Amino acid sequence: MIKHALSVTRQADFAAWYQDVIAEADLAEESGVRGCMVIKPWGYGIWERIQTIMDAGIKDMGVQNCYFPLFIPLSFFEKEADHVDGFAKEMAVVTHHRLIGDGKGKLIPDPDAKLEEPLIVRPTSETVIGAAMSRWVQSWRDLPLRVNQWANVVRWEMRTRMFLRTAEFLWQEGHSAHDSKEDALAETMRALELYRTVAEEALALPVIAGEKPENERFPGAAATYSIEAMMQDGKALQAGTSHYLGTGFAEAANIRFQDKDGGHSLCHTVSWGFSTRTIGAVIMTHGDDDGLRCPPRIAPHQIVIVPMLRDNDEDAAILDYCASLEKELKALDAFREPVRVLLDTNANKAQTKRWGWVKKGAPIILEIGPRDVAGGNVAVIRRDRLYKDDGKLNTAFVGKDEFVAAAVATLGEIQDNLYAEAKERLYANIRRDVTDLAVHYAGDDKFAGWVEVQWSRPTGAVLDGIVEQLKALKLTMRNTPLDAAPADGACFFTGEPAVERVLIGRTY
Amino acid sequence: MIKHALSVTRQADFAAWYQDVIAEADLAEESGVRGCMVIKPWGYGIWERIQTIMDAGIKDMGVQNCYFPLFIPLSFFEKEADHVDGFAKEMAVVTHHRLIGDGKGKLIPDPDAKLEEPLIVRPTSETVIGAAMSRWVQSWRDLPLRVNQWANVVRWEMRTRMFLRTAEFLWQEGHSAHDSKEDALAETMRALELYRTVAEEALALPVIAGEKPENERFPGAAATYSIEAMMQDGKALQAGTSHYLGTGFAEAANIRFQDKDGGHSLCHTVSWGFSTRTIGAVIMTHGDDDGLRCPPRIAPHQIVIVPMLRDNDEDAAILDYCASLEKELKALDAFREPVRVLLDTNANKAQTKRWGWVKKGAPIILEIGPRDVAGGNVAVIRRDRLYKDDGKLNTAFVGKDEFVAAAVATLGEIQDNLYAEAKERLYANIRRDVTDLAVHYAGDDKFAGWVEVQWSRPTGAVLDGIVEQLKALKLTMRNTPLDAAPADGACFFTGEPAVERVLIGRTY
Repeated sequence: MIKHALSVTRQADFAAWYQDVIAEADLAEESGVRGCMVIKPWGYGIWERIQTIMDAGIKDMGVQNCYFPLFIPLSFFEKEADHVDGFAKEMAVVTHHRLIGDGKGKLIPDPDAKLEEPLIVRPTSETVIGAAMSRWVQSWRDLPLRVNQWANVVRWEMRTRMFLRTAEFLWQEGHSAHDSKEDALAETMRALELYRTVAEEALALPVIAGEKPENERFPGAAATYSIEAMMQDGKALQAGTSHYLGTGFAEAANIRFQDKDGGHSLCHTVSWGFSTRTIGAVIMTHGDDDGLRCPPRIAPHQIVIVPMLRDNDEDAAILDYCASLEKELKALDAFREPVRVLLDTNANKAQTKRWGWVKKGAPIILEIGPRDVAGGNVAVIRRDRLYKDDGKLNTAFVGKDEFVAAAVATLGEIQDNLYAEAKERLYANIRRDVTDLAVHYAGDDKFAGWVEVQWSRPTGAVLDGIVEQLKALKLTMRNTPLDAAPADGACFFTGEPAVERVLIGRTY
Repeated sequence: MIKHALSVTRQADFAAWYQDVIAEADLAEESGVRGCMVIKPWGYGIWERIQTIMDAGIKDMGVQNCYFPLFIPLSFFEKEADHVDGFAKEMAVVTHHRLIGDGKGKLIPDPDAKLEEPLIVRPTSETVIGAAMSRWVQSWRDLPLRVNQWANVVRWEMRTRMFLRTAEFLWQEGHSAHDSKEDALAETMRALELYRTVAEEALALPVIAGEKPENERFPGAAATYSIEAMMQDGKALQAGTSHYLGTGFAEAANIRFQDKDGGHSLCHTVSWGFSTRTIGAVIMTHGDDDGLRCPPRIAPHQIVIVPMLRDNDEDAAILDYCASLEKELKALDAFREPVRVLLDTNANKAQTKRWGWVKKGAPIILEIGPRDVAGGNVAVIRRDRLYKDDGKLNTAFVGKDEFVAAAVATLGEIQDNLYAEAKERLYANIRRDVTDLAVHYAGDDKFAGWVEVQWSRPTGAVLDGIVEQLKALKLTMRNTPLDAAPADGACFFTGEPAVERVLIGRTY
């Protein structure tokens, strides 16, 4: 039996394993500030990679980056009733702008510096961006108006989990105003497609894109679309959302335009967001019992060179050899960017360093000892094929030139392997032949994947009843997949004619 | 007389001109949230360019990016007395985590959701990063520990000015812990040198690097260094600071390490920051009466192509010609990056577009009409040479191939020209022969530049007296330049033997 690098396996306790990966891969840690985490260099490096790729996609869409205030006056928020209902219970509220000594050696908010109007720390920026849009949009010539910001947002969650649900998180939020529903819906779908592409191609996360049912919409939205990824425990993780907001936010913020005929109309607005929570999805999709396996496209270092130094006079030759290898590799391009190579000269032992990089999930680890230098070889450990069938570490000894010549292709292969593995798992765990949810989820079977059923898209009380019924099995509706087969029978829930298919599963 | 594009000149009212540039160049605007601005695409694009260049320098230093919480518990802050004294008067304080209806249709902070301990919105992150460092540093092997974050910070300023002094601003803050004062001071100077290089080479801002006098130190620091830039009105703008914090913050946060002999010592810590305020410096250094002149290295678009369309059948040929020109230019590298070219197909009139780009400060504007297409030419407007001696617009008609061949060199020349012009102004406005400050600053002369004097570096009450004396003339000490000539006489203020030279001036 393999002795794995982590102290807990996925099988034994998935939740504990998740925390262990984060700690052992040095991705993040609790900060001592309630619900807020510190994102450490390896975790932040992954986010920087995601940002770079997403930002290029956003710019390709023709959307322009801006920056809007962190604080939102309460009065901005109150204008959209559904929106404020959705967020009022979890908002950080700034009430004072100065501290003062309490006379007993402690500081307190200065009662003389109380704000006339409390400020909300943004949980999302529709309202404050809407206020700007109402200034910027005058005529049809100003439309579509399309902006994006990279920002921190705060939602005061009662139960937090690193990356997945933290009081503060990082994201990008795109916002746009349009002259018609059609144009706004097209933008909603463009953003969704960007998310699907980045998730699948960069994060190696196969996802199902679809519309959220009415009860799962963003507060105030007319329609919400999502990409849903399946974690290794079968649960769904919503990895990005795109909202068609109708004209409700435009009405609240007074975003109107003069059309070509001189009339005045409300804009149709759109918003879309993708956050650091997707790093949680990467961990729970690609991690194994030895830590994270980081897809090469988002790995801060794609190839790590570990010199096997022994504090003797062979060390200099090893370091020279490693430096020349580093230089050769850095001259290569993978995924249209220079290959990211690290020569790890840290003072720790080579064995410690190897396992450190395994746990972090560096795609390729190269170990160089005196014999490799003498033979012109490298010892290659691929993170996607860590063990041989006999359970021994799968180290391949190949010629240095041979490795360099194949390095870019190998990185591509690792990226593809991680994606293919996750995709196979996703499709193997969606059932379409289910007649009784309780039998599958609560019965002996203990099914933990997703079920796709057809339904009549009920609303109101009927929908509420279905939601309650699912809740009893700890299930939720994820989305109605855009590329599902057409409905052709009776609704799973109501028996009425079905109009589409909906995915059901447990969720993060 | 030239009819300039702005409604107010620098000469007439520098402060009003500054606001006008920001509005006309579409850099930023008031947000409706007290003291907070919206950074618009052109302003944010400049910040993205600064970020990219600075971030590369930070990574070259070997410093790793992380992310730390927005919120700092009051108790973290209270530990360093000088630090809290310096910031307590201008901090946004979060006291509640939920809103509730007041029964009269308004929302109020929910009295049942009051935080046990108020949270500060970070004005700077020494305290919260110190708490992390105390967990991360155990032995000398962990040192130096060097991190950086790109973040928003909040300082509740009573009088705000866009970019220069806003309640919320964006910056990077570097933080490090070291095993000795020497190592910490070396890091302090490395960061200062990075700032000097980026300011001079990318922002085209000539600066004077030096140490701030004791009374101008960062709250809690043992030494503060700055780069100071001179605006066109002669005032100084502190464009970046680097602080040697001694062991005070390490003591407050308990950042200790086991040294090689097994003893335990306090770390010496360092912090350094560079913010969106430098965009204000770019405006006030390079702007003219026609708007901003954006140094090519930080211009979101370096070359803008304006097709002179006339809604007739020649338009298609013009657009083809522009598209092929755009493609040729985009294939070039300037400053080791692809040239940033925009083909402006906006529906506005060509004349409107031209002046829009002049006001924004695009380094090169190309206008293409039917005659240019026929002759294989381009009409070139360089933002650094906007007018001819006779006051007419300085449009050069050159062959397209000729322009393309010289484009990279031209961008370099514009960058150099802006820097050289600012440098000449800086050195022409530093006086070293001053015997009476009042004569120069308050007399008929109305000198508005800087004065360099030698001084004995007094402390305590003597220093306080000098500060008061300067304040009466609205003057402050900027810094003691690192590359000043050695002192060789009596202190300007005390008559005691001088030990160094100090710069005096008015400031933003």
